[in-house]
Amino acid sequence: MTDTAAPRHPFDDAVELTPAGDGRFTGHTSANYANMVGPFGGITAATLLRAAAQHPDSLGDPLSLTVNFAGPVAEGAFEISARPVRTNRSTQHWALELTQDGVVATTATAVFGTRRDTWSSDEITAPSVPDADSVAPESFPDFIAWARNYEMRFVEGGIPKTEAVEHPTSTSTLWMRDQPARPLDFAALTAMCDIFFPRVFLRRGQYLPAGTVTLTVYFHADAATLAEQAGDALLGSARAQRFGKGYFDQSAELWGRDGVLLATTHQLVYFKG
Amino acid sequence: MTDTAAPRHPFDDAVELTPAGDGRFTGHTSANYANMVGPFGGITAATLLRAAAQHPDSLGDPLSLTVNFAGPVAEGAFEISARPVRTNRSTQHWALELTQDGVVATTATAVFGTRRDTWSSDEITAPSVPDADSVAPESFPDFIAWARNYEMRFVEGGIPKTEAVEHPTSTSTLWMRDQPARPLDFAALTAMCDIFFPRVFLRRGQYLPAGTVTLTVYFHADAATLAEQAGDALLGSARAQRFGKGYFDQSAELWGRDGVLLATTHQLVYFKG
Repeated sequence: MTDTAAPRHPFDDAVELTPAGDGRFTGHTSANYANMVGPFGGITAATLLRAAAQHPDSLGDPLSLTVNFAGPVAEGAFEISARPVRTNRSTQHWALELTQDGVVATTATAVFGTRRDTWSSDEITAPSVPDADSVAPESFPDFIAWARNYEMRFVEGGIPKTEAVEHPTSTSTLWMRDQPARPLDFAALTAMCDIFFPRVFLRRGQYLPAGTVTLTVYFHADAATLAEQAGDALLGSARAQRFGKGYFDQSAELWGRDGVLLATTHQLVYFKG
Repeated sequence: MTDTAAPRHPFDDAVELTPAGDGRFTGHTSANYANMVGPFGGITAATLLRAAAQHPDSLGDPLSLTVNFAGPVAEGAFEISARPVRTNRSTQHWALELTQDGVVATTATAVFGTRRDTWSSDEITAPSVPDADSVAPESFPDFIAWARNYEMRFVEGGIPKTEAVEHPTSTSTLWMRDQPARPLDFAALTAMCDIFFPRVFLRRGQYLPAGTVTLTVYFHADAATLAEQAGDALLGSARAQRFGKGYFDQSAELWGRDGVLLATTHQLVYFKG
């Protein structure tokens, strides 16, 4: 899938880590994936996942990831420590921390494992929507840098355009892909799990102070299924369940070719207003 | 709510921790809350949450908890380390580990915080079901000790009774409460978030090897709302989204009096067969 003549994708620069020995890695924030304050949460989550995957003792593929955004990540260098706290026959549990100058900015835990064939069943199906090509792409305001790296074609619940127009539900459904296109892998899928803007923007019809406190991803696809997606658009749908007392939760699903469920993801989000 | 003449509730014995200094606590598994292998995951989750809550530096109430079941917890003593990795003005991030003889059995992260009044909205509503008193309680087989501590009245998707009767969906909806009744608090609510037996049992109509790998709870209620529930039954509903390659996810909601949403919870579960 890689063309050595092609320029390196900005996503690969953003999640690049240099091993520093003893389960430690150094990285650097990327201006391309900046958010209003600090980096896009999805790129931080993807980078933490990559630390576990790049660790010399890493076993299997990601099954789950939980990232806790403990404080802002400042522009510049950071260090990630990845510690395999327990390795079983078919699963491996990770503890991860992203620090800057010794201060913890982000923590995470991950479970990796090997998969085997079992009985399978889907109880949810991808929403029935028009083809990606027939839906117009939408853009976030320019000050949200990270969003320029994604093509987003909203089928419902698009980006708020006018202040103070409330929306009756918090559901957004969209086609999404890396821009420029890039073969899908676990890191890219992780980042896309955080592509859904805070649901409170949609309900209130305006941008408000809001930020993810904790993000969980359950990976349903193995590496072969991800490779089959190549650079195709994924279909994602997200919604909140309850807003109140400064926080809300949101849940989403990401679907690939032929309606295969690639990931389910949940987050708790802080908001003001 | 407490009657000093009443015997101590077995739940309080099960989650009891003794401070051992420097963010460490010692505890002991409880035969009352034993599962087929090791303790009921819900009691382990509740005990980890309590370690953060009991820590002298603890700030506010729980907002979220993620517990990773890294390996079996053996009957006997355990130690929990609770580390406040970062304390902000209104949130606090915790890293927790349960060890036995220095071996990590369970890891967790939690976010605590103070809440303030904001705009609020519910996008989901409690299922419409008969009153708890009009639904007959059901029991798990005797070898599942922990379940005897809960009164469970299933409205749909009850405990599999006959081998190999498959069920078309994985939804269970039930009234649940501590048995004997006990005032609701964050620890008890956390344990009840894991009360839903593995959804694969329901779909396949039989008990199979299965166990939670990782469990996340988002708390929507504050301490005052929990206190209002007293010892009333809560209404819970759970379902899976996808089963395959050895794992499935399940999501659930727990509701209190007047249909207030107390918690949403998600887990990834390992299964065989």
